[in-house]
Amino acid sequence: VAVLRLELEYDGTGFAGFQVQPRARTVQGVVEEALAGLCGERVRIAAAGRTDAGCHARGQVVSARVEPRLPPERIAAALNARLPEDVRVRRAGLAPDSFHARFDARARRYSYRLLDVPSPRWRRCAWWPGRPPRGECLRRAAAPLTGEQDLSSFASAGSTPSSPVCRVSRAAWEPWEAGWRFEIVADHFLYRMVRAMVGTMVRAQAGPDPAAELARVIEARDRRRAGPTAPPQGLCLEQVYYDEEGTG
Amino acid sequence: VAVLRLELEYDGTGFAGFQVQPRARTVQGVVEEALAGLCGERVRIAAAGRTDAGCHARGQVVSARVEPRLPPERIAAALNARLPEDVRVRRAGLAPDSFHARFDARARRYSYRLLDVPSPRWRRCAWWPGRPPRGECLRRAAAPLTGEQDLSSFASAGSTPSSPVCRVSRAAWEPWEAGWRFEIVADHFLYRMVRAMVGTMVRAQAGPDPAAELARVIEARDRRRAGPTAPPQGLCLEQVYYDEEGTG
Repeated sequence: VAVLRLELEYDGTGFAGFQVQPRARTVQGVVEEALAGLCGERVRIAAAGRTDAGCHARGQVVSARVEPRLPPERIAAALNARLPEDVRVRRAGLAPDSFHARFDARARRYSYRLLDVPSPRWRRCAWWPGRPPRGECLRRAAAPLTGEQDLSSFASAGSTPSSPVCRVSRAAWEPWEAGWRFEIVADHFLYRMVRAMVGTMVRAQAGPDPAAELARVIEARDRRRAGPTAPPQGLCLEQVYYDEEGTG
Repeated sequence: VAVLRLELEYDGTGFAGFQVQPRARTVQGVVEEALAGLCGERVRIAAAGRTDAGCHARGQVVSARVEPRLPPERIAAALNARLPEDVRVRRAGLAPDSFHARFDARARRYSYRLLDVPSPRWRRCAWWPGRPPRGECLRRAAAPLTGEQDLSSFASAGSTPSSPVCRVSRAAWEPWEAGWRFEIVADHFLYRMVRAMVGTMVRAQAGPDPAAELARVIEARDRRRAGPTAPPQGLCLEQVYYDEEGTG
C-alpha cells in the first residue's frame, strides 16, 4: 500500500461541490470511481480544500492510500482516460507514507474573478456584480486583509475551523482580460471566507473609504457586518503549498 | 422603419452555429426570436460574420430593419431580458438607413486560443493540440500571413467568397493565461480560414523552419497542402470594424 498524491484541475459547473453526497455528482465521487476502476477496490480520497458547488480548481491536491497496479508515471494518463472531461489529473505521483493532502497543507491560494460587463463567454468562471468593478477601490479595500488576524467576520456558519485566526500573506487585485481578479494566499481558510471577502469589497468599493470599511468589518468579528457572499462560479482553488515547496 | 445595429457576445458551445437552420438552436434564431418579441413582428438579422457551431463572439455585429417601439437606449436591456444567458447584447443603437452589418464591414478581428496543457476549465474556449505550443515557433510561422495575397490554401469548400485575395493587417501570437492566443485582422475571411491557418501553424511548429513552411503552403494555393482545420471552440470573432471606426 502506498500514498498516492494527485493534483486536479476541474470545472465546477457540473458538480454539486467536491465532497461526496448521496445522489449528487461530485468531484470526489467521480475521482474515487476512476481510482476504484484503476485499483480494483474502493478508494477514499482526502482533499486539501473542499470546494463548494460551482467553484473551480486549477491545483486541488488529493491523497489516497492505494494499492497501485501501475508505475507512478502512468497513473495520470490512466486516470484521465477514466475521468469525465470536466476533471483532469494534472500530476500524479507517490508521496511519503505520512502524507495527507489536507493536514499537511501549509497554505492555499484562491482566486476570484469579477467581470467588467455581463459576459456569456466567462459566465461560468466569473461574477458580474451588477456594476463595473472599480479596480483601484478594490485594491484599497484589500489592504487590511493581509496579516495574521481573526477573520470571523468572513466565516459562514457550517464549518468548525480549528481557529478563526488566519495568516494572510497575499491579498491583491489584478486586472484580467475580462475584469478584475482577486488573489489570496493564507495558511487556512474559513468556510466561504473568500466569497464573503469579495462580497464585502464589492460593497465597499462604492463607499467613501474602502480600506476603512474593511478594517471595521474585520474588527467587528461579526459575519453580519460583512457583505453578501459572492456567488460560487468566480472562485478557483489555484494552488496548495506543502513544506517542500514554500508558499510562493 | 429604422436600421437597428446590435453588438453581440455569445458562448457558441450550445449553438449549432450562427445561421438559422431548421430544428437547430442557432444564435440567429434566438436573437430573431427576442427581436420578434420586442417588435411584435418577424425580423431578419444580417451578421458581419457567420460563425460555425462551437465558435464564439465577443463583438459580432448584426443589423436589422425594424419598427422600434422603444427608445434606442432601452433596446439592449429589453433584448437581454428576452435572451438566454449564452447570448448578450453589448450595445444597441440606430444606424443610418443604408447600414448593413455584413456589406459595410471593412475588417474583422478573430482570435484563436491554444492550451499549454489539457484544461477542463478552458475546454470550451481553447484547443489542446496534443502537445504544448511552442510560442516562438508559432510567431515565426505567422509572419508570412501578413500582407495582401491569395489565401486559397486556407479556404475550405462550402463558401463562394468574392475573391481569395485577403489583406491581412495583423497576424500575431501572444501568451494568454493558459497558453498562446492567435489574433488576426483582415478585410475579409475565407471559409474556415482562421482554423486552417491555426492547424497549419501548429503542424509547422514541429518542423525545422515554420516560416518557410507557411510561405510554401500559401504559395501552393491548394487546401490539401495546409494542415488540418483546428477545432471550433478556440475561435472567437472579437471585433468588426466599420468606416467610422478605423481598423485598429
